[in-house]
Amino acid sequence: MIQKYPSVLLENAVNEFAKLPGVGRKTALRLVLHMLRQDNKTVENFSSAILTLKNEVKYCKSCYNISDADICPICSNTSRDSSIVCVVENIKEVMAIENTSQFKGLYHVLGGIISPIDGIGPGDLQIESLVKRVAEGHIKEIILALSTTMEGDTTNFYIYKKLAPYNIKISMIARGISIGDEIEYADEVTLGRSIINRTLFNESFNL
Amino acid sequence: MIQKYPSVLLENAVNEFAKLPGVGRKTALRLVLHMLRQDNKTVENFSSAILTLKNEVKYCKSCYNISDADICPICSNTSRDSSIVCVVENIKEVMAIENTSQFKGLYHVLGGIISPIDGIGPGDLQIESLVKRVAEGHIKEIILALSTTMEGDTTNFYIYKKLAPYNIKISMIARGISIGDEIEYADEVTLGRSIINRTLFNESFNL
Repeated sequence: MIQKYPSVLLENAVNEFAKLPGVGRKTALRLVLHMLRQDNKTVENFSSAILTLKNEVKYCKSCYNISDADICPICSNTSRDSSIVCVVENIKEVMAIENTSQFKGLYHVLGGIISPIDGIGPGDLQIESLVKRVAEGHIKEIILALSTTMEGDTTNFYIYKKLAPYNIKISMIARGISIGDEIEYADEVTLGRSIINRTLFNESFNL
Repeated sequence: MIQKYPSVLLENAVNEFAKLPGVGRKTALRLVLHMLRQDNKTVENFSSAILTLKNEVKYCKSCYNISDADICPICSNTSRDSSIVCVVENIKEVMAIENTSQFKGLYHVLGGIISPIDGIGPGDLQIESLVKRVAEGHIKEIILALSTTMEGDTTNFYIYKKLAPYNIKISMIARGISIGDEIEYADEVTLGRSIINRTLFNESFNL
């Protein structure tokens, strides 16, 4: 369907919004018309918020998470266990894990995963800085928490090889049936993994 | 679920994106992180496109559709029938009707519909300008093409009353069963309307 826009300005704005992931041209038009109905101040705030973030964003010098300070609040929190570091793809995983309140160690944010198809190699990620952190000798355990995709597995394996020379524990988050899921409908790879990695009943509940 | 952001700049950007209709905080974060991965030029283009549109948008002086010129391409197209005017809520309906290639008249864009709950009265819409266009005497038919909601019906009725003194035909777009829909599953109001407004078989197909 060819959509003819009566205004180049409108078309430009729709094109820009349509570049957002998961936003098609119809949704983009809806969003642009919504913005057009807002007052000038609202549109200015929207427009400047993303530009300011892009221009002024900083990354924690230790874990490379997005941060306003040189060292992020998590890394500078002395009550956390700095001997355990959880390796994640980006800030979304940090926030998801923080929400569980189950992890009291620190993070290392790679900023992506190895993906040759997208032109992302190990050099584009914060892997050398992770090796450097480990080489300092204070870290006892690295938890790998990347997606279970081919790219995630590749990245896990690459990091594993890089860290193998250092005498530390390298673990990965448990894979298994989600809480609340029906076993009948679980995919066979997950179900198989959940049997191989079965846990002792009393340990799971601290009995 | 409380999401703690490690950066105020990030939080601001997420808050702004989350104001978009249909965008929740999780999607907003995803969109913001996507923008953060783009180069500076892309973010600048995105940011400026919406601001430029907001600051420089013009409306056609005749039909009040969004336009870059004083008179929009549809109104200035002399091959179109300027004696028939289709009244629509906004530019989305203009584009949808234009896509059908079934309408060769002009439009009148109200810029919304009467909705007391949102504080939108007749004075906020381009109704007086429609009456003025009709009063000029050249228009023979007005087609009302608003949504079949209570607000749409109210607006239709208001416009009908306003235009009643002028001796013109006032029609509304046909309501009936959508092409391809099963009659069994049609709602009863639509089905009832489709029977009342039945059309002659030979006329429907130009037999």
